[in-house]
Amino acid sequence: MLHIFPVRVYYEDTDCGGIVYHANYLKFFERARVEAFRTKGFELNKLLCDYDIQFVVHSVQLEFLQPARLDQLLYIVTKVTEVRFASIKYTQKVYLEEVEGPLLCNAYFRIACLNRDYRPRGLPDILSKGIRQ
Amino acid sequence: MLHIFPVRVYYEDTDCGGIVYHANYLKFFERARVEAFRTKGFELNKLLCDYDIQFVVHSVQLEFLQPARLDQLLYIVTKVTEVRFASIKYTQKVYLEEVEGPLLCNAYFRIACLNRDYRPRGLPDILSKGIRQ
Amino acid sequence: MLHIFPVRVYYEDTDCGGIVYHANYLKFFERARVEAFRTKGFELNKLLCDYDIQFVVHSVQLEFLQPARLDQLLYIVTKVTEVRFASIKYTQKVYLEEVEGPLLCNAYFRIACLNRDYRPRGLPDILSKGIRQ
Amino acid sequence: MLHIFPVRVYYEDTDCGGIVYHANYLKFFERARVEAFRTKGFELNKLLCDYDIQFVVHSVQLEFLQPARLDQLLYIVTKVTEVRFASIKYTQKVYLEEVEGPLLCNAYFRIACLNRDYRPRGLPDILSKGIRQ
Repeated sequence: MLHIFPVRVYYEDTDCGGIVYHANYLKFFERARVEAFRTKGFELNKLLCDYDIQFVVHSVQLEFLQPARLDQLLYIVTKVTEVRFASIKYTQKVYLEEVEGPLLCNAYFRIACLNRDYRPRGLPDILSKGIRQ
Repeated sequence: MLHIFPVRVYYEDTDCGGIVYHANYLKFFERARVEAFRTKGFELNKLLCDYDIQFVVHSVQLEFLQPARLDQLLYIVTKVTEVRFASIKYTQKVYLEEVEGPLLCNAYFRIACLNRDYRPRGLPDILSKGIRQ
Repeated sequence: MLHIFPVRVYYEDTDCGGIVYHANYLKFFERARVEAFRTKGFELNKLLCDYDIQFVVHSVQLEFLQPARLDQLLYIVTKVTEVRFASIKYTQKVYLEEVEGPLLCNAYFRIACLNRDYRPRGLPDILSKGIRQ
Repeated sequence: MLHIFPVRVYYEDTDCGGIVYHANYLKFFERARVEAFRTKGFELNKLLCDYDIQFVVHSVQLEFLQPARLDQLLYIVTKVTEVRFASIKYTQKVYLEEVEGPLLCNAYFRIACLNRDYRPRGLPDILSKGIRQ
């Protein structure tokens, strides 16, 4: 299932090249993954308290196709592509101004599920089911 | 007139003290000022193109009363307190979870109106009227 | 006593106005305060472990006089102006390219000394003496 | 040739998980690439003025192996692996506390060389020679 999250570009997101600074796309992608969780009823803080689980980026591939600029509205499209014992794979894309607009950035994330001591933690059933839906 | 803008706290906003990093409140305040402009029909990019005007923080006082944490929803309340020839004064406040919730941060901004060469630029009538309303 | 700390401006520090984004000066000032501590033999992590003390910005006044740009070298000059029971006042200034160069930014900080539960914590003698020197 | 660049971890770099926020490694890597340029006599601003050339991240793969924490000293090791007509490939690594210390992060960058209008721009000889050395 796809999750769509709008992000407005503010001054804080840009650099003196006049475009969105590349590192900030990682922030946009994380906001979108967190909101995709929230739509399923999961909050990060509660997951850590209730299930001793947190999510950490294990690896990511990013491709920057076109730049974004101040005041533009971006749409982050998030898709879970694989749920494993203690990791989740995501494909995320950034589109300009419309969900079917120009594609600005592609990302492929592998997120590790860790306990609060940063050791691998299997996904509880309720979570792995919720994420798959 | 008051403008109210919600901000969700994400990982990117926090520091290892477990709270929102102090510098990030300046980002929240700017997002709110920009959105206050937008509700009146003004966009930063167009203002620069059409009127050769941009807004730069000239000075600010910040008071941090209570910390904010991951996943919390903040409300930024923005009020214009004075409009001069080439500057605008704002009072901005951050409330926790509700607009009448606990007050986390107070800010007093003086924003300078500059042209693209960073020299003072008087506010065009249409803007100074719009901001006052 | 004055502490002097150089900061190079990178893309990450700038915005699409072509200048250093105002919130980032708060980062520069904190780096400088931390390094001023370090020159006296204090490290933040150890202070929290050994003395249950951490430092949080209570309030700050910032004045932005002139912009800084990509690749420029800034000098942050840090001076402790008052040490109280559980707070420290600092004056910090940003100079361009030379310690006696153009003044870009003035800041007046009140830093609160808190324990790990974010309650006021009196400065231990060793710290208040060290900071005053 | 290897370029080694030290980075100290400050509060601004961390998140409420107690570790360096993943997006901030992209900032560290860029600082290191810029300083690798600088050791060869090239400054970004001058390259844009003199040669109408700027460098933009085209794609990157990141692997996060172990977390970094407040106050730690990181070493960014930068190696150019390929210089093409209008792009440069880098391998960059983050080590903890020592250049031969624990490996925290691996990165593989493809940097595009663009003119100020964000179109491909062949590397001038002086640059491609300088970068290869």
